[in-house]
Amino acid sequence: MKLNKKPVTGMKDILPEEMRIREYVQSVISSTYATYGFTRIETPCVESIENLTSKQGGDNEKLIFKVMKRGDKLDEAMTQVAAGNAHQDSIADSGLRYDLTVPLVRFYSNNSASLPSPFKALQMGNVWRADRPQRGRFRQFMQCDIDILGEPGNLAEIELILATTATLGKLGFKGFEIRISDRRLLQAMSAYAGFAESDFESVCITLDKLDKIGLDGVRAELIENGKTEGSVDKYLGLFKNAPGTPFDFASRLQGSADKAIAENLEEIIGAVEAAKEADFKMVFDPTLVRGMGYYTGTIFEIAIPQFGGSCGGGGRYDKMVGRFTGNDVPACGFSIGFERIVMLLLENGFNVPEPAKKAYLIEKGVGGERLSSIMAKAKEERSAGRSILVVRMNKNKKFQKEGLEAQGYTEFEEFYNEELKH
Amino acid sequence: MKLNKKPVTGMKDILPEEMRIREYVQSVISSTYATYGFTRIETPCVESIENLTSKQGGDNEKLIFKVMKRGDKLDEAMTQVAAGNAHQDSIADSGLRYDLTVPLVRFYSNNSASLPSPFKALQMGNVWRADRPQRGRFRQFMQCDIDILGEPGNLAEIELILATTATLGKLGFKGFEIRISDRRLLQAMSAYAGFAESDFESVCITLDKLDKIGLDGVRAELIENGKTEGSVDKYLGLFKNAPGTPFDFASRLQGSADKAIAENLEEIIGAVEAAKEADFKMVFDPTLVRGMGYYTGTIFEIAIPQFGGSCGGGGRYDKMVGRFTGNDVPACGFSIGFERIVMLLLENGFNVPEPAKKAYLIEKGVGGERLSSIMAKAKEERSAGRSILVVRMNKNKKFQKEGLEAQGYTEFEEFYNEELKH
Repeated sequence: MKLNKKPVTGMKDILPEEMRIREYVQSVISSTYATYGFTRIETPCVESIENLTSKQGGDNEKLIFKVMKRGDKLDEAMTQVAAGNAHQDSIADSGLRYDLTVPLVRFYSNNSASLPSPFKALQMGNVWRADRPQRGRFRQFMQCDIDILGEPGNLAEIELILATTATLGKLGFKGFEIRISDRRLLQAMSAYAGFAESDFESVCITLDKLDKIGLDGVRAELIENGKTEGSVDKYLGLFKNAPGTPFDFASRLQGSADKAIAENLEEIIGAVEAAKEADFKMVFDPTLVRGMGYYTGTIFEIAIPQFGGSCGGGGRYDKMVGRFTGNDVPACGFSIGFERIVMLLLENGFNVPEPAKKAYLIEKGVGGERLSSIMAKAKEERSAGRSILVVRMNKNKKFQKEGLEAQGYTEFEEFYNEELKH
Repeated sequence: MKLNKKPVTGMKDILPEEMRIREYVQSVISSTYATYGFTRIETPCVESIENLTSKQGGDNEKLIFKVMKRGDKLDEAMTQVAAGNAHQDSIADSGLRYDLTVPLVRFYSNNSASLPSPFKALQMGNVWRADRPQRGRFRQFMQCDIDILGEPGNLAEIELILATTATLGKLGFKGFEIRISDRRLLQAMSAYAGFAESDFESVCITLDKLDKIGLDGVRAELIENGKTEGSVDKYLGLFKNAPGTPFDFASRLQGSADKAIAENLEEIIGAVEAAKEADFKMVFDPTLVRGMGYYTGTIFEIAIPQFGGSCGGGGRYDKMVGRFTGNDVPACGFSIGFERIVMLLLENGFNVPEPAKKAYLIEKGVGGERLSSIMAKAKEERSAGRSILVVRMNKNKKFQKEGLEAQGYTEFEEFYNEELKH
């Protein structure tokens, strides 16, 4: 029986051309974040099923690739399920991680005694989601997260935004925006409009569609969901005019928002504008939502004109470490859209800077001492850091060279059986 | 309910100190193999269960982490198992890869039309084996494989050995050995001794224990397994004296071995010795076995004195692509023991070369314009490639600095509320 040549549904093989770009992007990320004091860590790709289904992952928890128990434990679970004593979920003891945040917080909780405080972490790793396959979206993809744990003040936000935008700048992006707001401001807006506290999440879900359905669409959906016209119009009135600065906008809320929230945003925006390496703008955007329920303060998002939507984002999540240890630790993180960046560079024919490459073409039959001396010559060039490909010469040498040129080889040297022919 | 802080059984969190070494080793591997014309590729961590259980993986197939089907397909599989119509294995549709060879061959079969020939691949990626947990051995670990597909001649072996030893040399290893032999020579030895062809695998399994149980132990086990004393003694007679060169040894086999096998080994050894970058020796070792059944020709192994046993190895496997496509393609590969190398560097306190690192300590309460100007100053240094950590000053500044020194920070600059105090 022939084996299956295809990758599993929704996952992909990565060929040399894309891999060169991925490796380049990773190296830029790693070296740039290092200048901001971030250090890399890694967690296993597999996490316990309890942690993965702890409601920290939102909708992603529906998309887990579950890993089966093994040996006696599997047999026992199967027996229990067959007898109707257990749900079929009990066959799994673990699963593939769907993000890097839950594993990071577990990691921090497990290792904080050995880590500096504040701890500035950089993670680059694959995550898996059993999403419906669609163009450009895969079931295995790389995430790149930076997080600062143990820093309660906005130095965390400032550093995360500066480091991330510096990285994007080094990758050639410019003219982009970092949109920023605060989850507590969203709460204040909701309170100001008179929505019930229990409606907060649902109001946010609707507001999050603003880009797609416009103010009228948001209005219709809020009313359809049973909100009063008075509250809805008071809410939407907040967005009729440009928001202005955080201070301006907070004054519209007539005391519903703690003054410190706007101050915090002003300070972040001011410091980032003063110290930014890349060409981008900080934009205060009170309609920014960010989906995850675990955010407790600042939220932010990258908007790059070349992309339709966001290319990463993050925020503060001060309550998640407490789920593991019982003691909250301030935390703030930023995730950049690694796959989208790679895709854009690939589509634009981005050339990874690399040194000149040379190919040795060796006639068939060259062996023994002659081959040894050719290999020794290659060694000299390789030791000096040059890239030398040593291959047998094909009958159709011209075609072979064209193929090698397409791979970036610019120099050729030919070796024949008799020294003379060389 | 508190969440679980620990990684899943047998897997580990990787802290910054180890991660620095891993990243360094990966960059040396990637850049050195690049000078030998290898290009990186990646395959998904998940492979179809059919491919993983196709008998290419030997004993590793018993150690697969299996991934459950999802949705309707899971329900259907559960129903079939409960009704006794299907084995519980049918609950899984995929699994985590246990090596990089099966995925590579699938990758090549799927993408060969877009790949150069010969194709020189470098893979670095995690693999998973549900092994009994033990010290220094983990259920998720990184493998690093290089392979050449499409090259029938020994240029493949020569290049693989040169590139791999150059990499080891750059990582600081010297005085090591590359042991080499040929699976066909093992067959010839077996035939010379008069063992039945069907006994070949079992004889190899016993011979593979030579290092542990010595010649007497091998003799006892072969006889216990029903081999005749005559054959056993003829077989072991081959190893009484040093093997000499491949030509010397082949002559002992009195025509059982094809002359081309010894010639091939002589040529590989000669070319590698002439063109090697690193300080090591090629050693012909006819007792070398290498476990995997898929090898069809040359086999080789790295022996580093600092390690007890082998630190990687490989060989030629010309028949595996045919399992996927129906057409054999010559293939030869080498896997280096990434985790063992990292462990050794870590235990020896290896210092990854990195530029000087500086920390800014900012007094609590510094904000607004003052903070902005400090961040702008940091920007100047960071843009120049320096690593600057910006943190709040602790009450116990001395203790804080000691901690930072332990992380490699050698310079400090302090910033207070009033410029004067600076």
